[in-house]
This record gives sequence, C-alpha cells and structure tokens, in this order.
Amino acid sequence: MSLSMYQASIPVLIRNLNNLSAILKKAEANAVTRKIEPEVFINSRLAPDMYPLSKQIQIATDVSKGGAARLAGVEVPSFPDTEKTFAELQARIAKVIEFLNAFKAPQIDGSEEKKISLKVGGQELNFSGQAYLFGFVLPNIYFHTTATYTILRHNGVDLGKNDYLGAV
Amino acid sequence: MSLSMYQASIPVLIRNLNNLSAILKKAEANAVTRKIEPEVFINSRLAPDMYPLSKQIQIATDVSKGGAARLAGVEVPSFPDTEKTFAELQARIAKVIEFLNAFKAPQIDGSEEKKISLKVGGQELNFSGQAYLFGFVLPNIYFHTTATYTILRHNGVDLGKNDYLGAV
Repeated sequence: MSLSMYQASIPVLIRNLNNLSAILKKAEANAVTRKIEPEVFINSRLAPDMYPLSKQIQIATDVSKGGAARLAGVEVPSFPDTEKTFAELQARIAKVIEFLNAFKAPQIDGSEEKKISLKVGGQELNFSGQAYLFGFVLPNIYFHTTATYTILRHNGVDLGKNDYLGAV
Repeated sequence: MSLSMYQASIPVLIRNLNNLSAILKKAEANAVTRKIEPEVFINSRLAPDMYPLSKQIQIATDVSKGGAARLAGVEVPSFPDTEKTFAELQARIAKVIEFLNAFKAPQIDGSEEKKISLKVGGQELNFSGQAYLFGFVLPNIYFHTTATYTILRHNGVDLGKNDYLGAV
C-alpha cells in the first residue's frame, strides 16, 4: 500500500504517546522504589531555562492533537496545563490517544498541500500539510519525548532506547 | 503531489543533519567564547551510562545513511567512529549529506513493503520499509539530535527550539 498522510501521522503519533506513557510508568515505579517524591521527577529540568518534565508531556500531547486536528481541518481541543502528578499526566496522554484513535484515514489523506497556519510563541507559521507534518509535528513530538527520556535518565531512571522506540 | 517514501525520508534526513550541523557550530562558537576546551562538550553526557555527544552524532549520521541505503537497496557505507573534534564531526555530517543528496526519488519510492533486516546490538530486527522509516529511522535521528541538543543546553550553550527545527 502506498504511503499516505494518515499512515505517516495518526499511527505514528499514537505509538509515540504509548511509548511516552510506558516511560512515565517506569519513572513512577522508579520513584517508588527509590523513595523519591514523584514531584522531583515531574519538576525536573536539564537546564534552568528548559521546561520541566510536566511541560514536556504537555507539549508532546499538544503537538499530537494539534497535528491531527489541523491536518483533518477540525477544531484543536484545548486542555489546561494543570497536571501535577503522574496520574494526571497519564490521563492527558490517554485523552489524546483517544482523540487520535477517532480519526479515519479519509479525514487526513490528501492533506499534503493543505494550508496550515498556527501561532507559536507569537510568531505565525505557515505550512503545507506535508511540511507541517514532517517539519514541525514529527520533529516536535520526538523532541519532547526524548527530552522527557533524557530528564529521567539524567535522574537515574533505568530506561533504554527500546522504551523510547517501543516494540519493533 | 502525493506523499512518497522518498519525500518522507531523504529531504527529512538532510534537513535534520543540516540542523545538527548548525547546532554544533553554535556549540563550537560557545566553547571559544567561554574558553572551554571543545573536548569538554564533545565528551559530555547526561548520565554515566549514556553516550557522549560525539557518539550521538555518529549514531544520528549512521541511522541517516543506513536508512537511505536500506530503503534503496544499496550497500550501507561504513565510517569508523574516530571523530574527536568539531571539525571531524562536521566532516562526517557533510559526508552523509552528500551521500543522501545522490539519491533520486525512484530509488526510494515504492519501498513501503520492502523487507528490511538489520542487526542492532546483536538483535536482528525485521521491518517493512515503511515500518523501518517511521518506527526506527525517523524516531532515531530525532532522538540523537535531541540528545545532542539537551547535552549542549545542559552545558549552558545558548540554543533554542528553532535551532533544532531549522528554518520553517
């Protein structure tokens, strides 16, 4: 079957969020084992002017739901950034996976040339659908998932590349 | 134009390597300004059992050249992992960009169902071309580019998301 915009987006985004959820589960279990308050991991960051783990999850999920919604031309659901616990972060990921699962291929397929505009940090960005998916959505979801991974590895959580890639 | 395996791979890989090169240039300039020996950045890692920056670049380039070569069914060029300076790391990136630039769309297009096998850490992995690109190549190049970015940010190098994403 020929590659399509749906195949290059929805299953890819869902898989990454499932991996992110599994990484967070390991982090939570590690905190319990080492008797570390969960907030220590959740508020941890790699530099004073980088986002903490909670914000990495919020952005990874935002880019995922925004990516699917804009490619399909439906409204982007808005979630308040209020998560402070592993359970709340997991609930946000689950909610976005549920949102993504509802898309059908014909909603996304053929969106290669679709005009997509969004504001990021006050700057208006304009893309074709394909440039948006490959130049913004995919690099961003992997960026924030890897940032989550490196924050946790830096804090001694036992993770490996297979946790990030998921089952091959 | 319909999305194709070529469009989802070669230009995406090249763009990421150009961004990685630009990030390294900023890191090198930062080392000069702060009078830090370049090897400090090049050998820096976020955890004792994570790879240092040099290895992150070596893997990002390996996955890029391996990805293109396997999708096209040509031999994967092998480079010794001997880079110890920014100039040598930049040369490796440039060599892989040159390799990628030589691919023409018909070499990669239609590789969705192509059987691809590779050994990673002694484990044999088997993919279809599409699963290899979206479940291995793309997540890996972004992982190692983001790891490079977070190592440098953790060491105080002034980088922002736009350096990672490149010009939109």
